[in-house]
Amino acid sequence: MSENRIITLLTDFGLEDGYVGIMKGAIAQINPLLKVIDLTHHIPPQNIAAGRFCLMNAFAYFPAETVHVAVVDPGVGSQRRGVGIEFEGGYLVGPDNGIFSGVLSLSPAIAAVELTNSDYWRCSHPSATFHGRDIFAPVGGHLASGVALTELGNNIDPNSLIKMPIPELKITNTGVTGFIQYVDRFGNLITNISAAAVAGKNWSVKIGNLKISPCQTYSDRSPGQIVALIGSHGWVEIAVNGGSAKSRLQLDRGDCVEMLF
Amino acid sequence: MSENRIITLLTDFGLEDGYVGIMKGAIAQINPLLKVIDLTHHIPPQNIAAGRFCLMNAFAYFPAETVHVAVVDPGVGSQRRGVGIEFEGGYLVGPDNGIFSGVLSLSPAIAAVELTNSDYWRCSHPSATFHGRDIFAPVGGHLASGVALTELGNNIDPNSLIKMPIPELKITNTGVTGFIQYVDRFGNLITNISAAAVAGKNWSVKIGNLKISPCQTYSDRSPGQIVALIGSHGWVEIAVNGGSAKSRLQLDRGDCVEMLF
Amino acid sequence: MSENRIITLLTDFGLEDGYVGIMKGAIAQINPLLKVIDLTHHIPPQNIAAGRFCLMNAFAYFPAETVHVAVVDPGVGSQRRGVGIEFEGGYLVGPDNGIFSGVLSLSPAIAAVELTNSDYWRCSHPSATFHGRDIFAPVGGHLASGVALTELGNNIDPNSLIKMPIPELKITNTGVTGFIQYVDRFGNLITNISAAAVAGKNWSVKIGNLKISPCQTYSDRSPGQIVALIGSHGWVEIAVNGGSAKSRLQLDRGDCVEMLF
Repeated sequence: MSENRIITLLTDFGLEDGYVGIMKGAIAQINPLLKVIDLTHHIPPQNIAAGRFCLMNAFAYFPAETVHVAVVDPGVGSQRRGVGIEFEGGYLVGPDNGIFSGVLSLSPAIAAVELTNSDYWRCSHPSATFHGRDIFAPVGGHLASGVALTELGNNIDPNSLIKMPIPELKITNTGVTGFIQYVDRFGNLITNISAAAVAGKNWSVKIGNLKISPCQTYSDRSPGQIVALIGSHGWVEIAVNGGSAKSRLQLDRGDCVEMLF
Repeated sequence: MSENRIITLLTDFGLEDGYVGIMKGAIAQINPLLKVIDLTHHIPPQNIAAGRFCLMNAFAYFPAETVHVAVVDPGVGSQRRGVGIEFEGGYLVGPDNGIFSGVLSLSPAIAAVELTNSDYWRCSHPSATFHGRDIFAPVGGHLASGVALTELGNNIDPNSLIKMPIPELKITNTGVTGFIQYVDRFGNLITNISAAAVAGKNWSVKIGNLKISPCQTYSDRSPGQIVALIGSHGWVEIAVNGGSAKSRLQLDRGDCVEMLF
Repeated sequence: MSENRIITLLTDFGLEDGYVGIMKGAIAQINPLLKVIDLTHHIPPQNIAAGRFCLMNAFAYFPAETVHVAVVDPGVGSQRRGVGIEFEGGYLVGPDNGIFSGVLSLSPAIAAVELTNSDYWRCSHPSATFHGRDIFAPVGGHLASGVALTELGNNIDPNSLIKMPIPELKITNTGVTGFIQYVDRFGNLITNISAAAVAGKNWSVKIGNLKISPCQTYSDRSPGQIVALIGSHGWVEIAVNGGSAKSRLQLDRGDCVEMLF
């Protein structure tokens, strides 16, 4: 119990209601020295895929042994498992519903447990609706304080963890078809076409009658112009210099994107 | 001045304008080692009742001696008192306008002072409109650093603190009538009917022609179905599995809820 | 490298997407002991003037040597410079686009460098679209850890930093005409008329047929009444007691305000 690892929190709780502050209090009750960093609490309610995307893009920017607690948990209180996972970059704590599958697709699980040991929960009879407070935050607090993963519950096979794979690209006669997997606050459209998928290729994005050639950064085009580039997260992204591609192109998460090679 | 207690902040300042960051700076100027945890800054502007509700539900999840600074303060700069309060769970600092009365209904005040000693303010002539920055955050910073409550100003009778009681339930022929005291980000409708009020009873909620029997958690019902349960805060809550009860039932804060026994 | 200065962050990234959490991770990878305080991440996208205003009002409330990292950066990846600046209150790190000119108008630069030394970046080939993560947060982390400003790149003349001055007041026959430079979350209208400009004068604000005399605080007038006062930031502000002046007067940022002496 000598460690003071960093804990990150990612939830769909929003910041309006104090739920996140309460999770931080529950952690501070265990170890007031722990440092907690918010990834985001604005995942759209119950949108596991958006949580998976944000966590996948963030984990590599944290110190070794960081504990990532993620709670987008529509099945709270049901039979879905709570899990703790060790991977090369640190630890993952939350519901077993696929939210960790983006991280684990890039850095596989080394070990996993089901969170069955209530000694590390807030109380032995947790609320049926707020496991973030009663189980996941306390477990994260203990893990970040140096408790061994294996103390937290029964070992499980990492291959049994629920996966939520990112749909594969469809190969076409002229290139590939992908889709928009995330739209950020600027209205940038982030596709599921990775930098690796276009590496070394002469590519452009086709939207309706528009053909958009790639560039390096937003301001490579005039204000108001549409750009396509490899975003900072490593995915092909469609944006508008100084504007919102979402509004301009009337595209949103889930819509198809055609790429020409 | 040897302590490093945790400070929580609850305000209606929002996060858009830097007001909260400025309060944290004012605390760091006093003691850069203090840890500050945000409860929420999204209390609807000047809504003391919503602030009271959030603080009442949160305080028990923090370490002993935590200093809770709450600033929902429509009377800033007027004759309303600024107060510091000791209670079993720690300390409360803010305007004397009822915002602490939820906490104190569960854990009574041990001692209270009016914040009259300007030695612990940011400056002897505070702004008339931002006591969060000039009085409450600095006082909270000093208190969390180990300054005694009695140093902060004149003792006052805790019974003189302004109360904002939660309205009592109305007993009817068939059960009780309560009201919705809070609606959270998920659209869950949180009533003023406590777990204690329904303990051991066979209860259901009646809304229009609907009669909703209690369950344990959201996912006990099919997606889209209405549920009634004891929420994680200990109040009867009406929700929709995977949706918003607020939107679905067109109910909001202040609306009546009929409970049948 | 023995210091643990405070870092503040101000961006237009919002809190939805994890970008801010990633910046904090990048800082923690450099020095996990550093304390990071959010000023705001809700600057309207690419609105440098709003960022300048918020930073100008906040810097004085932080400890000496605080490092302020500000990223409102429509020119990211273009030829615009990244800069590090020393001033009496601490350090400034971000794009050279005028965002620091409010702070520097109150507390001039002592020294400045262009951030050319990639040893202090996250990587020698930063993303073209996220310098907050790859350059500014890491540079801020090193600076807060005690690296000398001059290590970060080539010295530049502080006078060469881009300025974005606040427009001067227009003197009229009856007083001055200013404009609304910021609207906060409460709908308070903050003008570019400073406390100094009205000191010792008998002033009132004229809006349409309304003439508003000054008072000390919001609650000096009845609920719903319009007030004019010197706000906590030192600018003349127009507000409504218990309401929004923006909604009530249908005025917004950029609109003119006529002051009578």
